[in-house]
Amino acid sequence: MNTPTATLLISCPDQKGLVAKLANFIYSNGGNIIHADQHTDFSAGLFLNRIEWQLEGFHLPREVIEPAFQAVATPLNASWKLHFSDAVPRIAIWVSKQDHCLYDLLWRQRSGEFKAEIPVIISNHEELGAIAKQFEIDFHHIPITKETKLEQEAKQLELLEQYKIDLVILAKYMQVLSADFVSKFSNVINIHHSFLPAFAGANPYQRAFERGVKIIGATAHYVTKDLDEGPIIEQDVVRVSHRDDVKDLIRKGKDLERIVLARAVRLHLQNRVLVYGNRTVVFG
Amino acid sequence: MNTPTATLLISCPDQKGLVAKLANFIYSNGGNIIHADQHTDFSAGLFLNRIEWQLEGFHLPREVIEPAFQAVATPLNASWKLHFSDAVPRIAIWVSKQDHCLYDLLWRQRSGEFKAEIPVIISNHEELGAIAKQFEIDFHHIPITKETKLEQEAKQLELLEQYKIDLVILAKYMQVLSADFVSKFSNVINIHHSFLPAFAGANPYQRAFERGVKIIGATAHYVTKDLDEGPIIEQDVVRVSHRDDVKDLIRKGKDLERIVLARAVRLHLQNRVLVYGNRTVVFG
Amino acid sequence: MNTPTATLLISCPDQKGLVAKLANFIYSNGGNIIHADQHTDFSAGLFLNRIEWQLEGFHLPREVIEPAFQAVATPLNASWKLHFSDAVPRIAIWVSKQDHCLYDLLWRQRSGEFKAEIPVIISNHEELGAIAKQFEIDFHHIPITKETKLEQEAKQLELLEQYKIDLVILAKYMQVLSADFVSKFSNVINIHHSFLPAFAGANPYQRAFERGVKIIGATAHYVTKDLDEGPIIEQDVVRVSHRDDVKDLIRKGKDLERIVLARAVRLHLQNRVLVYGNRTVVFG
Amino acid sequence: MNTPTATLLISCPDQKGLVAKLANFIYSNGGNIIHADQHTDFSAGLFLNRIEWQLEGFHLPREVIEPAFQAVATPLNASWKLHFSDAVPRIAIWVSKQDHCLYDLLWRQRSGEFKAEIPVIISNHEELGAIAKQFEIDFHHIPITKETKLEQEAKQLELLEQYKIDLVILAKYMQVLSADFVSKFSNVINIHHSFLPAFAGANPYQRAFERGVKIIGATAHYVTKDLDEGPIIEQDVVRVSHRDDVKDLIRKGKDLERIVLARAVRLHLQNRVLVYGNRTVVFG
Repeated sequence: MNTPTATLLISCPDQKGLVAKLANFIYSNGGNIIHADQHTDFSAGLFLNRIEWQLEGFHLPREVIEPAFQAVATPLNASWKLHFSDAVPRIAIWVSKQDHCLYDLLWRQRSGEFKAEIPVIISNHEELGAIAKQFEIDFHHIPITKETKLEQEAKQLELLEQYKIDLVILAKYMQVLSADFVSKFSNVINIHHSFLPAFAGANPYQRAFERGVKIIGATAHYVTKDLDEGPIIEQDVVRVSHRDDVKDLIRKGKDLERIVLARAVRLHLQNRVLVYGNRTVVFG
Repeated sequence: MNTPTATLLISCPDQKGLVAKLANFIYSNGGNIIHADQHTDFSAGLFLNRIEWQLEGFHLPREVIEPAFQAVATPLNASWKLHFSDAVPRIAIWVSKQDHCLYDLLWRQRSGEFKAEIPVIISNHEELGAIAKQFEIDFHHIPITKETKLEQEAKQLELLEQYKIDLVILAKYMQVLSADFVSKFSNVINIHHSFLPAFAGANPYQRAFERGVKIIGATAHYVTKDLDEGPIIEQDVVRVSHRDDVKDLIRKGKDLERIVLARAVRLHLQNRVLVYGNRTVVFG
Repeated sequence: MNTPTATLLISCPDQKGLVAKLANFIYSNGGNIIHADQHTDFSAGLFLNRIEWQLEGFHLPREVIEPAFQAVATPLNASWKLHFSDAVPRIAIWVSKQDHCLYDLLWRQRSGEFKAEIPVIISNHEELGAIAKQFEIDFHHIPITKETKLEQEAKQLELLEQYKIDLVILAKYMQVLSADFVSKFSNVINIHHSFLPAFAGANPYQRAFERGVKIIGATAHYVTKDLDEGPIIEQDVVRVSHRDDVKDLIRKGKDLERIVLARAVRLHLQNRVLVYGNRTVVFG
Repeated sequence: MNTPTATLLISCPDQKGLVAKLANFIYSNGGNIIHADQHTDFSAGLFLNRIEWQLEGFHLPREVIEPAFQAVATPLNASWKLHFSDAVPRIAIWVSKQDHCLYDLLWRQRSGEFKAEIPVIISNHEELGAIAKQFEIDFHHIPITKETKLEQEAKQLELLEQYKIDLVILAKYMQVLSADFVSKFSNVINIHHSFLPAFAGANPYQRAFERGVKIIGATAHYVTKDLDEGPIIEQDVVRVSHRDDVKDLIRKGKDLERIVLARAVRLHLQNRVLVYGNRTVVFG
């Protein structure tokens, strides 16, 4: 389906008639729903829904959809977001020294797997500037020290502003973001090189080796002020054995990190991830 | 959610307003939708939907829901089925000599994983009669030969009638059902001991060993007149290596068969599987 | 290969000629090696080996093999164990109230997957006595309270003595063994219902649900005095989604627990697991 | 372990003393074995072994090892190969129009995952010449038609000669090699975009979609004169659902193809794969 669509991600207290109200809003305005998926979290008494319809033939002009739907959403105490499939989000990739996730993300964007622009790469090290150059993407080197962290984060925020960034991807950016930063820019996806909550924090592969686990994993999650505690978007695992030393775990982990991060980014870009509390609903 | 619910599985040519029409039917009659999941197969121009709502507070008495919905469905050229969550389907398990799937299904039913009754076990051999006795389930031994197949199938159909069977599970029943039988009783789930379409037919493990595959699988599917060609409900796989001989493949396969069959049966019993053409939509 | 074999599990400081020394001991005594697998942990400077040979045609009588090999092992500072394939280990299964692992282990032993005897089931509750009866296995109900734990453990040790038990399987035995017990009987395999080290301790499924993980796991490990910290033998995982509530996680987990525990027990019974430090080498 | 090692891959009819003979050859010449792994295929009566030792301190000069070992191997009717870990194999990557496997292989080689040189890329299309240029690798465009196939294969063989190629990787090279070619250059690894033997031949993803499978796979195998029938080195799979159309299968398959091919190449480069008949022993 390549005609443009609108997608509504909505959550509100559960009550009768919610599906009907949403469907009627779209149908009465001439929209054709192509995806509708609902989840009810009974423990939270919460209704969560993703609904996507074709804009072709829809009577409301784009700029009117939001105010028009607001009239439906307000009485429901709903929190919601509207997305258009032909919008092209702008991504900033943050890295340190490792290149595997960066290469992978760039290849996927170039090959059309990601419908997004990647205008800038930010790093606390200089090494990966060459890749940015190779792909003709702006590169900003912003070194971080305990002392300079806050002022450097101010610079980073300026860049996000300047480049009109919608999403930050921490592609093996080995720095913690301050609570202050996250409060100012919250749309950040991180790839953690372990099967969280196992081995949260530093050197997960070393610790996995020492613990003698038979499986290792990787976790893509939204970044919150609590390190490695953010809502999980995607995880995957791979078997290891006594024959794998720490170097092997790191190598196998790289493949996991690339794929888990890529899946999470794609789900996010397709507006399939709905966060509530510290959990996600992923509308497959 | 333990209050009784109604579930509608429906497929029809895609058109505008389908979600609204379904939701309004339920809402206008006072129903609270707890699950709604839609899929559109654009290549087939088909709308497929599963919608589940609480019967508590629903204005229509159960016996009226079907005729009432028929009025909605007819103009849509929809094919649909209505299910009630507190109905208890009756299952006949068919086996030959292997007991692993039979034990597993019985354990799951006893432990409450399956909301169903299992009043009868049918086998072309006598061996597993002891298990039926142990679980106090009727056991019918119906041997099959080329010559007697058709008349024996007539007996089997009588038993399904007599025991008011809704679903037949071929739990390693090593016989092919005739096209005639399938045309008369179509609600049959089979577990095939390979990753279909690989190694369709006989001796899949032997052939998998000879081919030197590194992964083996199992497939649960609805039975059609074409052997091993029916709509697939669930598949899963497990790694094997050169250290595994045919006996090891068979042993590892047994665990796969048990779990894949159990998942498929559970999905079917929860009315989550919608068949169209030779494919299934599994509403997770 | 159904003729009896001897298996040597050995670990010692790495040095030249170890493989030759082991192979020559067997060859010079007329043995035919059918499996030989070596691992060297360079970080630990440790040589670890599993070697299995046919006893048919081996010149040394069984009772002489140990003293004869001791002469080889002593100069190597080796720790080692000798096993005969036709020995039939005796297992005590310990349970509480959940029956899925118990049923699974009993079925596997009956079906010949485990070459072992299961003369006794011990439980801190009475519920599963019926299953013991059904399989005609002695059942001992030994309730545990904080106050009675130590004296009850003394009873348990007596029973292990009395039944000549080689291996204890904690098949969802929801009690911690005291350090004192473990020091007296160390051959204990436990199934933990999480992907350790994630969610060590109590209520892993509840905590997994709250954390919103996308994958859950199970872990089979040898029991040590440190709860959930023992050497891991086997792990496996299964995907979950936002649609799975805690009850679903528990249900999916049961299938994992059964299979992971069964694999670990089988590896142990085949003398394929070599423990060193807090790690295992699993000779596949 | 970064000091150079020698690795022996050997298979011969099973008999007593083989491990001892191999180990003694190495030990008596002052070698330290760091890996030794044996497999016996009893159905074939075949002994298969991989043994790796440090060259440091080994008394035999490299050029003497082969003739010296020949004296051991001949009486055993053994077929065997000797490899040195510091040898750097030369790889030719063959492609058509798809770039995902090519990018992946080049990234892994650059990042040190593959210890090999990649001096040349050969393609029947011109599209990927730009990537060759970007990585400063020779690129040869050799278009293939039914009519020109044989003469073009002659050119390809010349290039393999000219570049001293040890291994050809068909990284989505959508052409069949003639039996004649394979007889002249047999060291060829192919990635097939299905879980062989399922969907052998053309358009596997289309056919997988039509069959409605719930899992798709990829297979890396050595190329033989029989299309898609060569010895399998590695396979892996990924789940799909009714929500995945053919394009999604292709996208998901690309990730599988990259990883399965990379694993197979790495195993081959580490001399861990021993082919016998149409099967492989992969010494993990």
